[in-house]
Amino acid sequence: MAQQDRAIRTRRVILEAAASVFDELGYDRATIAGVLERAGVTKGALYFHFASKEQLALAVLEQQVIDIAVDPQKIKLQELVDAGQILSFRLRTDPLQRGAARLSVEQGSDRVDRNQSMTSWSAFVEGLLTEARERGEVLDSVDVRETAEMVCGAFAGLQIMSKVLTNHADLCDRLAVFFQHILPSIAVPALLARLDLDPERGAKLDAEIQARALAGEEVA
Amino acid sequence: MAQQDRAIRTRRVILEAAASVFDELGYDRATIAGVLERAGVTKGALYFHFASKEQLALAVLEQQVIDIAVDPQKIKLQELVDAGQILSFRLRTDPLQRGAARLSVEQGSDRVDRNQSMTSWSAFVEGLLTEARERGEVLDSVDVRETAEMVCGAFAGLQIMSKVLTNHADLCDRLAVFFQHILPSIAVPALLARLDLDPERGAKLDAEIQARALAGEEVA
Repeated sequence: MAQQDRAIRTRRVILEAAASVFDELGYDRATIAGVLERAGVTKGALYFHFASKEQLALAVLEQQVIDIAVDPQKIKLQELVDAGQILSFRLRTDPLQRGAARLSVEQGSDRVDRNQSMTSWSAFVEGLLTEARERGEVLDSVDVRETAEMVCGAFAGLQIMSKVLTNHADLCDRLAVFFQHILPSIAVPALLARLDLDPERGAKLDAEIQARALAGEEVA
Repeated sequence: MAQQDRAIRTRRVILEAAASVFDELGYDRATIAGVLERAGVTKGALYFHFASKEQLALAVLEQQVIDIAVDPQKIKLQELVDAGQILSFRLRTDPLQRGAARLSVEQGSDRVDRNQSMTSWSAFVEGLLTEARERGEVLDSVDVRETAEMVCGAFAGLQIMSKVLTNHADLCDRLAVFFQHILPSIAVPALLARLDLDPERGAKLDAEIQARALAGEEVA
């Protein structure tokens, strides 16, 4: 493995360890020592990548959005549904997603700019809605920014509720209910029946992505 | 003032002090000593009403739901909108609502049963939707329990987003956007145009309620 690849892997190991510590303890109670122990890396390795706990938290929040890349679909609005369902599925087990979710809604330390996280997600959804509008998929009555922020805000709450009640086990179902309610006032009617809102879709898409990543690694 | 009235007032003073401490510090960092100082009551008075910090938190969460009583409306779904808008308006300044909001979404201490808070709100909304259905206001496709939980979960997230970005100043607007998106898939079409979704409605209704309470006190 090339040195650069090793560095990328180490960075990822540290990020996931940090995320799982944030998930368990929250930002305030998390410590660099705890992250080091979980990651099994040296202090030097950690500080090579991240200067502080604050930077670790920001990197976890940033990676969360990067990790949710979805395959292009014929209907752009389907990609919005897919991103939501993949995220919801991964919140069950993916340490990075779980840690980021806790950081992004936790009130407490003001050193983590949660504003940034909300803004990144809103920009991501706004981008999808804008493309969908250009393709004629979105009703004229929709203000894409307003709707994007509403979707992100509501999602944050649905994931908290699902975490409290079932440790995220029912989040895909809750998200499907949410999409069923909002899409009729977003999508043009002719598209509605062609969208796949199946709550199992997140698990299916995640499996496809994992299989492809594995195949890619084997080729490399 | 009768002794019972005094006890009720003292209880309320303690509850509001506790809520404002929870709002500022969160559950874990809040202390009974801090609540005593803010309430300006004796330790004996506090322990007469509440046995522990945990009980204070539970009482704040319980009072939150009781405080959001709305006037009956011709259209039952309007009461759902009104409850949401009054709550959103009060989150700007009402210490009890602010403290309860933080407690209900904060991850951390497992001693506060946030499950209970989510369940109370869902039951409240489900009750309104069930009455609305009995009056023929709700589409057949709606599962009232599922929809009630979706509304409560989404609201929790919208209030977090609004708190992070504007300290709740824009929550009434965000909630109006949410209602605009979901009501077309809840209400029968003939009712839609008759619902008042104005984001200023919370402020207006709150002023009416306060004025009435004041008039009632003067009469007493």
